[in-house]
Amino acid sequence: MNVGFLGFGEVASTLSVWLKEAGADVYTSIENRSNKTQGLAKDCGVNICSDNKSMAEISDILISAVTPAEALNIAKEVGKYVKGIYIDVNNISPKTVNEAMGYIENGKTVDAAIMGGIEKEGIRVQIVASGSYAEQFSNLNQYGLNIRVISPDLGKAKALKMLRSSYTKGVSAVLLESLFFAHQLDLDQELLKCLESTECPDFRESSLSRVKNSAYHAERKSQEMEEVLKFMNNMRKLEVIHEDEHPCMVKSTGEYFKYISENMKLDKKPDNLKELFELLKD
Amino acid sequence: MNVGFLGFGEVASTLSVWLKEAGADVYTSIENRSNKTQGLAKDCGVNICSDNKSMAEISDILISAVTPAEALNIAKEVGKYVKGIYIDVNNISPKTVNEAMGYIENGKTVDAAIMGGIEKEGIRVQIVASGSYAEQFSNLNQYGLNIRVISPDLGKAKALKMLRSSYTKGVSAVLLESLFFAHQLDLDQELLKCLESTECPDFRESSLSRVKNSAYHAERKSQEMEEVLKFMNNMRKLEVIHEDEHPCMVKSTGEYFKYISENMKLDKKPDNLKELFELLKD
Repeated sequence: MNVGFLGFGEVASTLSVWLKEAGADVYTSIENRSNKTQGLAKDCGVNICSDNKSMAEISDILISAVTPAEALNIAKEVGKYVKGIYIDVNNISPKTVNEAMGYIENGKTVDAAIMGGIEKEGIRVQIVASGSYAEQFSNLNQYGLNIRVISPDLGKAKALKMLRSSYTKGVSAVLLESLFFAHQLDLDQELLKCLESTECPDFRESSLSRVKNSAYHAERKSQEMEEVLKFMNNMRKLEVIHEDEHPCMVKSTGEYFKYISENMKLDKKPDNLKELFELLKD
Repeated sequence: MNVGFLGFGEVASTLSVWLKEAGADVYTSIENRSNKTQGLAKDCGVNICSDNKSMAEISDILISAVTPAEALNIAKEVGKYVKGIYIDVNNISPKTVNEAMGYIENGKTVDAAIMGGIEKEGIRVQIVASGSYAEQFSNLNQYGLNIRVISPDLGKAKALKMLRSSYTKGVSAVLLESLFFAHQLDLDQELLKCLESTECPDFRESSLSRVKNSAYHAERKSQEMEEVLKFMNNMRKLEVIHEDEHPCMVKSTGEYFKYISENMKLDKKPDNLKELFELLKD
């Protein structure tokens, strides 16, 4: 089983370790890649191809794991050389993935999305997949991955990722705002105590991690929510939903993170709530 | 230990059962009360006083558990007769509880708030308390209650309740909106599956209960969020927080519930998501 990675960042390097452990032959190309990326590929011990074209020709499974901005171009570049199945795991919209897949001439395409942080220790992150070749892609479960097929339609995996995002980031914004107001009245610790008695067992720990993360990555989160908002507004245009079903929580989540990113400069993740809120106040 | 209840609805009847079991003498007055309330008091086997004045005079602990609209009037009515400690557990703002307590002439006042649903089986709901007599009130923990003192300042308990509300209702709104959009793409069950793999163990059950409850009580929830918004805006005026710290998540949570209540008429709690979203679409 030859698995090729277009792009070799955090996602590709993590998956390649699991795949190699389970006996797959993993490839990447160092064509036009930074020294850092080349170093990472060597550290992971994957096979190096001289260019993307030759990798596309030998891969049974070719996974595009580049930056969102590169996703279309890389599909265009390799589209006519792909022999096996082409999987896009990039953080792009359902609309963009459909456009990208149009370049893959053999039509063997899969839309995939990583659900959650890739780096969580001990747990193999869930990958959801959609498209008519998604079942074949899920054969990689025999090679250490955790893939769940959700639909034969391209775009559904990306849609699910955006919906998940709208929930998790919305909760983070609600939490951050409530804790911030609580902090002004010296009630933030009391609020956590109250909530942990009725919410789930690890509420405190997961909430603090959520809040610190959100604040630190506020700018990126605000941009991601803009994408989710576009996607939801697009659903309106397609008349999947009625005109007046405005996604108002998504909209304010994006605005809230924008506000945070513009009013608080964090050089590192804050250690605790107090430190975080002192920064927010300045 | 004589404990008197002004008002005898769900809160008073539940607490009185616990107090009686633990050996307290519980009183209420049937003055100006409906037949239903009188019946409930008799069913609980509490002692009946002919009027509020006489109950105020014999109670070591006098608990006001009326409707939010009655909270000020009842304090005014009994204020000069209160001999023991007067506790307000009503769902009112920090500002209103301070006003109500101004009528209690002996000054032995406690601000208290019920944190969560009173009716949850097997668990004694947490009551937070603030004010200089809160510690004395917490002696009722020897009589079966679950009181936690959070501050010597009147108003802090109500503030904490509002902050808790801003979190729990915000999460419900985020969840309802995300699931609604997911439902339009036939991805609501997939979204629940994804989230339950990374959120807490009983995520599915608690989420469904949250969503059905929120939709059914949307109008009341939107009104409660208006109160929270007033409270937070008031914090701004008091310069507890800066002018531009708008509580945007609270604002859109209120607007979202208003939208739900205006666009969906539910005669009963929906049985499942499908039924709920079909109603939302009409």
